[in-house]
Amino acid sequence: MPALEIITIILFAVFAVYDYGKSHSGTRTTKEGPVIESTAELTCFLMSSVFQDVHVMIFIGFGFLMTFLKRYGFSSVGINLLLAAFGLQWGLLTQGIWHLDDGKIKVSIFKIINADFSTATVLISFGAVLGKTSPVQLLIMTILEITIFSINEHLVATVLEANDVGASMIIHAYGAYFGLAVARVLYRPGLRNGHENDGSVYHSDLFAMIGTVFLWMFWPSFNSAIADPGFTQLTAVINTYLSLAACVLSAYAISSLVEHKGKLDMVHIQNATLAGGVAVGTCADMNIGPFGAMLIGLVAGIISTLGFKYLTPILASNLGIQDTCGVHNLHGMPGILGGLAGIVAVALGKKEGGNAAMQAAALASSLGFALVGGAITGLIMKLPFWGQPPDQNCFDDSIYWEVPEEEEENEESLAHGDHSKNKAEV
Amino acid sequence: MPALEIITIILFAVFAVYDYGKSHSGTRTTKEGPVIESTAELTCFLMSSVFQDVHVMIFIGFGFLMTFLKRYGFSSVGINLLLAAFGLQWGLLTQGIWHLDDGKIKVSIFKIINADFSTATVLISFGAVLGKTSPVQLLIMTILEITIFSINEHLVATVLEANDVGASMIIHAYGAYFGLAVARVLYRPGLRNGHENDGSVYHSDLFAMIGTVFLWMFWPSFNSAIADPGFTQLTAVINTYLSLAACVLSAYAISSLVEHKGKLDMVHIQNATLAGGVAVGTCADMNIGPFGAMLIGLVAGIISTLGFKYLTPILASNLGIQDTCGVHNLHGMPGILGGLAGIVAVALGKKEGGNAAMQAAALASSLGFALVGGAITGLIMKLPFWGQPPDQNCFDDSIYWEVPEEEEENEESLAHGDHSKNKAEV
Amino acid sequence: MPALEIITIILFAVFAVYDYGKSHSGTRTTKEGPVIESTAELTCFLMSSVFQDVHVMIFIGFGFLMTFLKRYGFSSVGINLLLAAFGLQWGLLTQGIWHLDDGKIKVSIFKIINADFSTATVLISFGAVLGKTSPVQLLIMTILEITIFSINEHLVATVLEANDVGASMIIHAYGAYFGLAVARVLYRPGLRNGHENDGSVYHSDLFAMIGTVFLWMFWPSFNSAIADPGFTQLTAVINTYLSLAACVLSAYAISSLVEHKGKLDMVHIQNATLAGGVAVGTCADMNIGPFGAMLIGLVAGIISTLGFKYLTPILASNLGIQDTCGVHNLHGMPGILGGLAGIVAVALGKKEGGNAAMQAAALASSLGFALVGGAITGLIMKLPFWGQPPDQNCFDDSIYWEVPEEEEENEESLAHGDHSKNKAEV
Repeated sequence: MPALEIITIILFAVFAVYDYGKSHSGTRTTKEGPVIESTAELTCFLMSSVFQDVHVMIFIGFGFLMTFLKRYGFSSVGINLLLAAFGLQWGLLTQGIWHLDDGKIKVSIFKIINADFSTATVLISFGAVLGKTSPVQLLIMTILEITIFSINEHLVATVLEANDVGASMIIHAYGAYFGLAVARVLYRPGLRNGHENDGSVYHSDLFAMIGTVFLWMFWPSFNSAIADPGFTQLTAVINTYLSLAACVLSAYAISSLVEHKGKLDMVHIQNATLAGGVAVGTCADMNIGPFGAMLIGLVAGIISTLGFKYLTPILASNLGIQDTCGVHNLHGMPGILGGLAGIVAVALGKKEGGNAAMQAAALASSLGFALVGGAITGLIMKLPFWGQPPDQNCFDDSIYWEVPEEEEENEESLAHGDHSKNKAEV
Repeated sequence: MPALEIITIILFAVFAVYDYGKSHSGTRTTKEGPVIESTAELTCFLMSSVFQDVHVMIFIGFGFLMTFLKRYGFSSVGINLLLAAFGLQWGLLTQGIWHLDDGKIKVSIFKIINADFSTATVLISFGAVLGKTSPVQLLIMTILEITIFSINEHLVATVLEANDVGASMIIHAYGAYFGLAVARVLYRPGLRNGHENDGSVYHSDLFAMIGTVFLWMFWPSFNSAIADPGFTQLTAVINTYLSLAACVLSAYAISSLVEHKGKLDMVHIQNATLAGGVAVGTCADMNIGPFGAMLIGLVAGIISTLGFKYLTPILASNLGIQDTCGVHNLHGMPGILGGLAGIVAVALGKKEGGNAAMQAAALASSLGFALVGGAITGLIMKLPFWGQPPDQNCFDDSIYWEVPEEEEENEESLAHGDHSKNKAEV
Repeated sequence: MPALEIITIILFAVFAVYDYGKSHSGTRTTKEGPVIESTAELTCFLMSSVFQDVHVMIFIGFGFLMTFLKRYGFSSVGINLLLAAFGLQWGLLTQGIWHLDDGKIKVSIFKIINADFSTATVLISFGAVLGKTSPVQLLIMTILEITIFSINEHLVATVLEANDVGASMIIHAYGAYFGLAVARVLYRPGLRNGHENDGSVYHSDLFAMIGTVFLWMFWPSFNSAIADPGFTQLTAVINTYLSLAACVLSAYAISSLVEHKGKLDMVHIQNATLAGGVAVGTCADMNIGPFGAMLIGLVAGIISTLGFKYLTPILASNLGIQDTCGVHNLHGMPGILGGLAGIVAVALGKKEGGNAAMQAAALASSLGFALVGGAITGLIMKLPFWGQPPDQNCFDDSIYWEVPEEEEENEESLAHGDHSKNKAEV
């Protein structure tokens, strides 16, 4: 890990500069109250607020969403922080090399939003293998997944010129199928009958709802972050807002239909209520109308909930894909739905200058890179020297973390004087 | 629920369009970096950031504030999400029909802020009946309460032309007395002596503090969201900031004065510290001075804390009003205080063009619609086919949710192979 | 407490007015949709969004960061709210008297950001004495620490004209050494061998991670809040973003190097991952390059983690400084590192108009005021009539709060009818 960070910093030393190198030296030194002077400055300032919203989704949203496991909360939120913090540096580099200017990567507010975006792919894949991989394995996945992401992203955005403003295809579908391919390669027959720690307790489900609700709330910012500012951006906000709202209703309805005695299942509520944000991503800035956005959200909520109930068990038992968080249902199928909706919307002329064939090519490319890239990455991760945990230690923080003793045992440990927090170790 | 969402989507298909229909087709396709071109676009962009703050209050704030109950956290945050997600769609429709343009509801950033606002009334009323009503009952309440809200809102804002920028009257007082009227109609003699689940545990109180603090922090955005932009909006931010700060001090002081041995009560801290935000709402954009704002906050903290300590038990035992979250103390009395403060401030000329009589009429109207509307809604909710829970199942998630087993029982359940999360069900 | 708030309100009545007294009376009354008209209005609006981010750090960030203690969560988040709510009022006054205009303090969005900043010093010091001081003692500390802060801040910013945009010196180093001086004066020999409640449980560590992640995410807003708007502000955002990302990697690396069997320690992750935000503060708006920012973050993560592991126990056992949250490692040493980095950066010409000697004087002044001010404050807090808790009641909420009974005891308490929430007390 130290070597990795040192290499990264050296790469930054060589390649990275601020975007506004020249104008920076001319900073105003007047002290008569700050003033926004140019449109470019204003736009950057405005984007800072969007950036902070996206940042919340990456670190609180993804981090806490995965805390539902009863004994894996430290790893969920802690390794999420580690992977995202490394991934954003790596993403700045790998995305930056496609847009070198005088041989330099010019770091701007748009670049750091895109860097955050690139980490989202890794955090989605992390959900598929949650509890079954070591931090070192996951850092390897981060390096490879973001590198491949930036190739696919360049292909989709610059070569194919496809639309994917909210990244249904290039982040959600890509991240999900990449993770599922990794999970397939790392298949563990020993977990076929479940694992005692692969479940939640009451308060761990409430922690997970923090992640769910923050993702849900800020998704309009995510889907509109890189839209053309102004009315196009507002379209993305409104479409996402409405798609998510409709999705909540369908997720609740289907959850209570398929569950025993009409009860709701927390897994569905924590995840499927977000599928509308994923699925409306590609079309978010298109003129699909409030009605179109809601329809997409409604369908996304239905297929996501049904996927959790019926498809995930089949994938695990028949295809050997053990998908801890059910990312196939939250990001995979809704991501494909988003890609398909984008093809239809463009074909119907909802986006000026769009081309349905290019949209289809973008979806195919994203899935192709995900499956091939994920399989290769999985094979590398499977090499026996990355500290992969044995089956019995899966879903358990105590293999990687100092975990506080239970209440009852605590006094005993104090008598022995070991590692309580900040205590004077005399 | 599915039928409800489908009807809603059809209504959107018929009535809803984006606000900027014409200019939208002229979206810039240049790719040389995004630029904000017009003042109208800029204002919309700026409002997006305020919208996200309000959104956080609705979904995290209200949702987690109600998680204090030891066994009702799933319902608190989960049903809050359901009601708010449906309510915002319904609010867009019912508020929109008062402002049709060519027979269409034009969805803009202001409309979605107002839609979020309309859901707040329902979430306040939800607090009064928390733990004692079924999701279906609550969806009925959502439909009726938001419909009546939009009538009263139209009357207050457009007919009376009263000032209520932070909605002390039309949201807080209205939502509270609506909920109390419903609670009165649904009175349960069986809960007269309390209920074993009607209380908190240590960590449920901490979850509730997440809600409290997010509400507290973003209240300046809430009270300024629909103020005239610029200095008037900043007045609303500053007044709310100072009122809330003063309110915290008085809530703590009174809590420790009235409690046993000078201890603090978490119920007071979770709720009464917010009363200053409610009470300063109507006057928030008026020229009441920092001193005026703090005085309102100080008084609000006092009456709210005293209400929790002395009035809530009397309402329950003498008037048959069982107010689970004490919304009378957080939203009811402070809302009336806000309305009265608004009358005084307008009479003192603190708001150009204000009319004290119209302010008084607005307060009376809000209370009248709340009490009559709430009573009628309560009677409809009392019909015996909405699945209202029996007394013994009140305040218990397990009637509506699959709840994870306790730690000890868990191994046994695994042996029987039932519903642990995402496990391959072979 | 009531007296304190009443005095404060009277001071506001005498001194505080809105910043825009004259233009306020000319508020537009048109209702044809809101419009931002002037650059000054626009800048204020933009700052509101930054203000809300800083507000989140103060109330959620600091509040939840300290909830790691198993039985002190109510006090951590609750007293944090109390101190910050009072502190921001006091900070407005004490900072305001240095900038009187016609004998008045003109409250603007910049003033309330600075008021929030001034509370941060107290919340840092609170971390050093967490669990060992009464609310009254802490309110006294708040009054004195903010008063002294505003003297030092005036000296550093206006007299020395030193750069400290992200406040490594005047907030972090000052707050930390002030708190350590207080802790030294309040030394408790009885806690030399630890205390059974001075430790975490599993879920209390997860609550603390809420604080950590919110601080981590919004630090770019904190460090850029008072930077010159435009590109300089963006430099502060980008430098902070990169410093924090690098810091996470070094904190994780060092934590696993120094801990038993390569495990990670939650204390390090909760705290040392933030040191990069502290350390880059002074240089945040300087032209240090992405590489420079990351180097500062890398070093900060290393010294902070090593400090937690090796230095904190030595300070406690040899110097009698019992630093509950380890603020020396998160704010003290990284704050000094930030000050030193600032001297070097200014000497290298990274900030136009900067003066390295003035930077050094600013660091010395901040440390001097902290140590002397903290020692005097500690002596006042040590007076025997402020309700300081005895050793055995340290780190225990139940001395100041009504704490809910444990599950098992709860039914018994209900049989006796005492204080369950909102229950009708017939």
